[in-house]
Amino acid sequence: MPANKALIGLDLGGSAVKAGLVTYEGKVKEFKRYDLPPEKTVQQVIDIIKKAVEDLSTKASEDNQEIGAIGIGAAGIINMDKGIIVSSPNFHGWKDVPIKELLEKSLGIPIHLDNDANAAAYGEKWAGAGKNARSLVCITLGTGVGGGLILNGEVWHGDYGMGGEVGHITVDPDGPPCACGNRGCLEAFSSATGIVRRAKELVKFGKGNILARIARGNPEVITGKMVYEGALKGDEAALIALREAGKYLGIGMASLINLLNPSMIVLTGEVTGSWDFFMPAAMEEVRSRAFQAMVEQVKIEKGKLPEKAGVIGAAGLALKHF
Amino acid sequence: MPANKALIGLDLGGSAVKAGLVTYEGKVKEFKRYDLPPEKTVQQVIDIIKKAVEDLSTKASEDNQEIGAIGIGAAGIINMDKGIIVSSPNFHGWKDVPIKELLEKSLGIPIHLDNDANAAAYGEKWAGAGKNARSLVCITLGTGVGGGLILNGEVWHGDYGMGGEVGHITVDPDGPPCACGNRGCLEAFSSATGIVRRAKELVKFGKGNILARIARGNPEVITGKMVYEGALKGDEAALIALREAGKYLGIGMASLINLLNPSMIVLTGEVTGSWDFFMPAAMEEVRSRAFQAMVEQVKIEKGKLPEKAGVIGAAGLALKHF
Repeated sequence: MPANKALIGLDLGGSAVKAGLVTYEGKVKEFKRYDLPPEKTVQQVIDIIKKAVEDLSTKASEDNQEIGAIGIGAAGIINMDKGIIVSSPNFHGWKDVPIKELLEKSLGIPIHLDNDANAAAYGEKWAGAGKNARSLVCITLGTGVGGGLILNGEVWHGDYGMGGEVGHITVDPDGPPCACGNRGCLEAFSSATGIVRRAKELVKFGKGNILARIARGNPEVITGKMVYEGALKGDEAALIALREAGKYLGIGMASLINLLNPSMIVLTGEVTGSWDFFMPAAMEEVRSRAFQAMVEQVKIEKGKLPEKAGVIGAAGLALKHF
Repeated sequence: MPANKALIGLDLGGSAVKAGLVTYEGKVKEFKRYDLPPEKTVQQVIDIIKKAVEDLSTKASEDNQEIGAIGIGAAGIINMDKGIIVSSPNFHGWKDVPIKELLEKSLGIPIHLDNDANAAAYGEKWAGAGKNARSLVCITLGTGVGGGLILNGEVWHGDYGMGGEVGHITVDPDGPPCACGNRGCLEAFSSATGIVRRAKELVKFGKGNILARIARGNPEVITGKMVYEGALKGDEAALIALREAGKYLGIGMASLINLLNPSMIVLTGEVTGSWDFFMPAAMEEVRSRAFQAMVEQVKIEKGKLPEKAGVIGAAGLALKHF
């Protein structure tokens, strides 16, 4: 491990670019966030990335270090081998953007591009909760449910680079519609969006007086934060919505355990803030549905790199790749 | 590839040991079946295996070949590294049987042991339908639903050797009880047992006059063969039972596709004889539930090595291992 080298990890989100100066051991020495405008051209994002790389390179040079490689995680369909963002929900209108080539040309530093959820999963494996796990499933419970599979220490991309869609396994065939077009996906139940949808529904059915009050009588304005607040105050609708999210998460995890027999499942994302409200129901399903021997082997834990898993993982993948 | 060597593959089933003399290219030169008594001691099975090896070695010697390695596939919990059958539904009372050690000692030929469903999956990959697939999921629709994952050309065992339980992903959380203790597993719907259960139920509800007649008015005696016969004659209960088996198979396959993005799904086992009755419903679910780009990439085909996939795969794994 060359002492005079450091890595940069970038997490291209819809509203911001998160950037980190990362050591070869997976430690973040500097972390920055660059806001993005709602509509952004390729050039705007490239410029912000260049600014981030410049800022972090300056920081690195204070320790006489230079940047050995840059890793980028981006949502959407990624052509990893070519370093192209094929399409992305975060960047409307982008089509086949050769981000690796564009950046390597102007920066002269090798770039590795991967999916953001895969990068986050790898971050938890490399430097977070999954350090000692050979294989793990990372499930990010946010606005949607993302995820990544680490199998034998490597990101599992599938034969065509699109695998790991943990949020889109069907956990109840007759469940609510999912953003992906299917119904009853894990995401439809256990994302913040799914939890809020269910809480609204329950409040409209007359359950959840406390949550109704928090929302000033208008269920339409209920947010994930309000559900959490309601749950803390013992609101029935909030508690049911979170318990159901846990139940379906548990059903999904049981299938993943029986299928993959991983050492670990790492749960990340904003919903994990409500851990105590959804995990008992989740564990009940896991224990009743998965093979006992595999349940005994799997650790199910909260991620250890909130906000930064994607940045660290992107850097780690760049290190692995070059 | 040494021309003077051949492999033996063994498939230890509940009622018989299937044995094959297999070339280094995955061709079966001789195939034999040795019946087993209902209750069998370790020594009885060892003796039959020795007999099989002797018979096939004799055959091999006719071509001046000797046996380079022996692969064994067995149902149950396998400790692959140590070559131990920990426990098996086929062999009541067996506990931690060191089959590799026992056989290597007396035969002097290296032995590789794996799970039978993994062996069958590897057989289809090595010499069957999946020759050109980098990764595939093999789903065996028999009395139960077994399966195996081949990821990047290798059997996926999971971190503790127990992965690949494709039959025990939950496809409907409120579905019927499964032999594994869970409910709503793929196996509960799409195995021959599940199909027969559903057909019986429908006949009892007054559907399926043709099937009722085939069963001479007693739904309890309905078998998988009768359901197939009924379906051929247009019986309503048989057609519904097979269509539902297909529907849940499709739900399960959609999840596997979204999760693993494999090049291929190979379907094997007796139920595939009813292909035309269950596949349309299965494909409808796959298309409506999995990501379109991944559906376009995946081939879903019938296995090409009926009866022999396990034997061929066990031999192939032995070849790979030694």
